[in-house]
Amino acid sequence: MDKLNGMDTEGMLKESLEAGRLLVNNHLQSLLDESLTNGHNEVVELAGSVLMAGGKRLRPVLSILAYQLAGGEDEDRVMSMALAFELIHTATLVHDDINDSAKQRRGVATIHEKAGVAKAIIAGDWLFVQGFGLGGSYDSRIVSIMTECCADIASSELKQLNHVNNLATTPEDYYSIIRGKTAGPFAAGCEAAAYIAGASEEETVALRRFGMELGVTFQLVDDLLDILGDERMGKLRGADVVEGKMTLPLIHALTLLHGSSRERLAEIIANFSDNLWSELIDLLNEAGSIEYVRTLTQTHLERGLQELQIFPKSDLRTIIESLAKSVIDRHI
Amino acid sequence: MDKLNGMDTEGMLKESLEAGRLLVNNHLQSLLDESLTNGHNEVVELAGSVLMAGGKRLRPVLSILAYQLAGGEDEDRVMSMALAFELIHTATLVHDDINDSAKQRRGVATIHEKAGVAKAIIAGDWLFVQGFGLGGSYDSRIVSIMTECCADIASSELKQLNHVNNLATTPEDYYSIIRGKTAGPFAAGCEAAAYIAGASEEETVALRRFGMELGVTFQLVDDLLDILGDERMGKLRGADVVEGKMTLPLIHALTLLHGSSRERLAEIIANFSDNLWSELIDLLNEAGSIEYVRTLTQTHLERGLQELQIFPKSDLRTIIESLAKSVIDRHI
Repeated sequence: MDKLNGMDTEGMLKESLEAGRLLVNNHLQSLLDESLTNGHNEVVELAGSVLMAGGKRLRPVLSILAYQLAGGEDEDRVMSMALAFELIHTATLVHDDINDSAKQRRGVATIHEKAGVAKAIIAGDWLFVQGFGLGGSYDSRIVSIMTECCADIASSELKQLNHVNNLATTPEDYYSIIRGKTAGPFAAGCEAAAYIAGASEEETVALRRFGMELGVTFQLVDDLLDILGDERMGKLRGADVVEGKMTLPLIHALTLLHGSSRERLAEIIANFSDNLWSELIDLLNEAGSIEYVRTLTQTHLERGLQELQIFPKSDLRTIIESLAKSVIDRHI
Repeated sequence: MDKLNGMDTEGMLKESLEAGRLLVNNHLQSLLDESLTNGHNEVVELAGSVLMAGGKRLRPVLSILAYQLAGGEDEDRVMSMALAFELIHTATLVHDDINDSAKQRRGVATIHEKAGVAKAIIAGDWLFVQGFGLGGSYDSRIVSIMTECCADIASSELKQLNHVNNLATTPEDYYSIIRGKTAGPFAAGCEAAAYIAGASEEETVALRRFGMELGVTFQLVDDLLDILGDERMGKLRGADVVEGKMTLPLIHALTLLHGSSRERLAEIIANFSDNLWSELIDLLNEAGSIEYVRTLTQTHLERGLQELQIFPKSDLRTIIESLAKSVIDRHI
């Protein structure tokens, strides 16, 4: 991804993301092709159907950009790690989709839908294994970062399962879950990138923190989209509410409201159906919860951007900053 | 595991296995304890319930013995790899048990039985990740061996699923499945042990082949036990037949029999119930299938032992040889 001169920031960002996405896709496809020649046809086909079904490759592209920002010059050196995290991310999606009985992922049928749960578990395992296989080409610090990240994902997923339909879920519970499950992989990908680039410990920590704040922002935006919907994204609203996942707007409103409003909100969450949407939104607005979470997305984004100040101003830093900002409106 | 003088071979083997088992258990428990202090309580508890529920630790003990036979002198150097394979083995059991709807494993309730499928998938993932985390402390050759082994497991499991109740399964299909799923991990554990010990390429290949033959023997014995049962082991017979898994005695009989015997066998396999046992055994005996598989266990065992001849005779080699032989009667 060359730096681009003479373009506005949005243009630079778009070019950079598109180049990164294509690069990552090419490498992932090569990896699948190589496994095919080793005779793993069916598992490669199943895992590949979700892996290659699109997606913005935000995580690996961010890792590559973080590597460059940290002074890394040979993109090939960071690629295996960036791919490793994408493979592991996809593995968790395949297994999560089983648990959520999801019908589609990235616009195609989920693996358990088309081939059954048994094969979907195995395809997810294969993706995990490929991810760790790539990670093992680095020294043990990278493997430690990956292992800790994955252990945190597992713990937070269990915690999230335990909090389904739990109206007493606190903001602390919520943050602990999303840091482990969503933000942790962003943080780990940035930290690993900095380490591979040979960055100082201070820079490595700054990039880790940037990733964490960006990941938190990402999840908060996801929570808002689940309630507000986003026709541009083709994203259906309400999936989390239906599944009983306690998103921050709900947690906030349950904490803030009292009396009959609190009671009614609890009823709506416990027995949600589509005709309750406008009432739910009214209650969230009464509690100021949507505005509250919107403000928090800004707060976490700004904290993340602050961490980048350790690096000198450059086109690359501007691209990463505008990538971070773009997470809030998800136009990317 | 010190070498023991002045004892008969069986005594040496028993001492060696017991010492190895305790050593492996202590290390696994430390690993769980460390993860507990890192706050991963529930996933550690779930994964630990199956990981620590007993088991002979045949695979990791074999790796340690192979390391020593290959000239390795510092047991600590091979331990992480030996544990890694045991963790991965347990991960596959946890995920397999979901697919087989198994109620018990190693005498305790399976994770999906007591905590649901979602948590069992996550606990299995956690075990995989811990295994690869340990593997990543070695250089990339070890990680490659592990990755390839796990990819083969995944492919063979899919193949096995595709062959459930498939009466046209050939011996070639069967061997391809059990080499990937059962024997491959034995082979990989021995190969990795030799590599860590700094063995020559020739010795490394010999130990890999030994592991593969031993693993095949192990699976053939398992097939026989499924049909003949073994009260000493508390193993229930018939689980494979009920699940429609095509074991070698069945495949052999389906190939050898013809006319009404072949027809009746096909009927029995397709609609098995407990009152058909004696008829099934009669048909297998008519085809000579049980005797055939028994002979094969000897053939593969001897091929494996032959590979060990590359190493000079020693107490240690005798222990490994007698460990291999003991697989056939599973007294160990």
